[in-house]
Amino acid sequence: MALLDLSNELALGIDIGGTNTKFGIVNHRGEILEKGTMKTTGYDTVIDFIDTLYNNIQILLQKLPDISVVGIGIGAPNANYYKGTIEHAPNLSWKGVIPFSKLITEKFGKDCRITNDANAAALGELMYGAARGMKDFIMITLGTGVGSGIISNGQLIYGHDGFAGELGHCIVKPGGRKHWSTGSEGSLEAYASATGISITAKKLRAEFPNSLLNNFPEEVINAQTVYECAEKGDEIAIEVFRYTGQILGQALANFVMFSSPEAILLFGGVIKAGDYILKPTKLHMEKNLLPIFRDKVTLVTSELNEADAAILGASALVWEK
Amino acid sequence: MALLDLSNELALGIDIGGTNTKFGIVNHRGEILEKGTMKTTGYDTVIDFIDTLYNNIQILLQKLPDISVVGIGIGAPNANYYKGTIEHAPNLSWKGVIPFSKLITEKFGKDCRITNDANAAALGELMYGAARGMKDFIMITLGTGVGSGIISNGQLIYGHDGFAGELGHCIVKPGGRKHWSTGSEGSLEAYASATGISITAKKLRAEFPNSLLNNFPEEVINAQTVYECAEKGDEIAIEVFRYTGQILGQALANFVMFSSPEAILLFGGVIKAGDYILKPTKLHMEKNLLPIFRDKVTLVTSELNEADAAILGASALVWEK
Repeated sequence: MALLDLSNELALGIDIGGTNTKFGIVNHRGEILEKGTMKTTGYDTVIDFIDTLYNNIQILLQKLPDISVVGIGIGAPNANYYKGTIEHAPNLSWKGVIPFSKLITEKFGKDCRITNDANAAALGELMYGAARGMKDFIMITLGTGVGSGIISNGQLIYGHDGFAGELGHCIVKPGGRKHWSTGSEGSLEAYASATGISITAKKLRAEFPNSLLNNFPEEVINAQTVYECAEKGDEIAIEVFRYTGQILGQALANFVMFSSPEAILLFGGVIKAGDYILKPTKLHMEKNLLPIFRDKVTLVTSELNEADAAILGASALVWEK
Repeated sequence: MALLDLSNELALGIDIGGTNTKFGIVNHRGEILEKGTMKTTGYDTVIDFIDTLYNNIQILLQKLPDISVVGIGIGAPNANYYKGTIEHAPNLSWKGVIPFSKLITEKFGKDCRITNDANAAALGELMYGAARGMKDFIMITLGTGVGSGIISNGQLIYGHDGFAGELGHCIVKPGGRKHWSTGSEGSLEAYASATGISITAKKLRAEFPNSLLNNFPEEVINAQTVYECAEKGDEIAIEVFRYTGQILGQALANFVMFSSPEAILLFGGVIKAGDYILKPTKLHMEKNLLPIFRDKVTLVTSELNEADAAILGASALVWEK
């Protein structure tokens, strides 16, 4: 019996960021056949943005004759899976509630699904990456902010309103560090994001004048420069990651006791610090777990190429059951 | 077209507690036709326990001719849904890993499903109680301990190993109160259980000699006596519930940002304190939520008769898809 040949069925994946929008044509195996990028900003209206996006994608499609795009998947901040909307996204210039999925379908003539970028990343890992074959895992994206996507029983958890999985905003230190944007006190994002790490580094280097961190001007104190100092043996830089890992690990323990995943996938710029952050994270996760959960959850770093992961994740929405 | 008559198809629900085991024969509408109770303790082996349980249930079944028991559902501490086992339950005398579901099926000749008591309670609410028609909610049981059952996308979350939903053991105050049994520091259960409330009350009454709480001997300082003092206007007793509600509300906010439920159902002896605990809980839940989740989640108290809820919840496992 011949297997169904799906090779010419392709998905269009689009990742909308605050600055850039990336897009690509992806096959079932997670190979990006063609891809492109454009600015997200500088358009008078969302319609103008979509018109330009359409034209850019037509150019890609003309390079791929004999293929069929079966659907469009989009990752975007504050995207609502159920309604197909982008709602009050602080980093986008389109304000209010945008019926984005509907506008895309009208322009492209294809079904469109939309979800937030971290959810899309989780689907990308499930379909093409380190989470293939898993039914229960949590994806944590550690970048400028902290995002998350939760897969339980093989499905993405969207919640009743489509906004589930905002683990970066969980309070991990009640009364702790005030968040620069939400105003909440002690959220995971306030500590474990790249932004949080640079705040911790600035505080610690002020207390320890001998730290190598003091060799850098204020504006370049970030996860990368802290890593460089840690590699040179600077104990304060190492402490920045240890402290971050402690808070992240405590938070992960709580997440494990919620959905009991077999793995937690970490993705994003922050994990380039490697064991400086991963070891204390693992240590404090295990320490805070109920014994029944200990030594069961693997901490995994993403296998996907970071430049392509957002496109792949968005495209995975098309194949999602 | 005639509807299928399911009225003579019944489920057997069994709730195994540390002290007592309750059982009942339940129809599709959640009516308990016959029920009984027996001690959990005092049997040399689990086989002896099951033999006595079987005999007790035969007596009930003889009162119900012309019915068909289609399956058996069991709620028990440390029960594993996937494996059908009860594993290392601290409050039961059977140690190690007991293949409980298999033993029951061998004795009764019926399919058997088993899960922890809070998961069973959540299924009971979904099928017969306040959560009918909901696809996403979290059940929190506030009794001697704090248990939880999470329904997401219409399904109970079991996790990869069958142990998901141990929200009582989430750390809500890092470095906080040491748990009497697990040794963890700052868990939700250490504050929001009846046990936690009596600890808080004992601490506060020692600081405030004028509190009515000082009129009771140490051993009867519990959620009930704190409630009685609150009803008499004692500000310290009211503060015990306010403080408990603050911690519970903060924890609920984190749970909402995980699975975005439409409701949180509260069940158990502690909620008899009514608004003394519910108002601060709601206040601090809302306060700690990201704006996108605010004013969306209802706090609901259980509709089920507490004496029957455990049997109903266990029986609901039989009808679960």
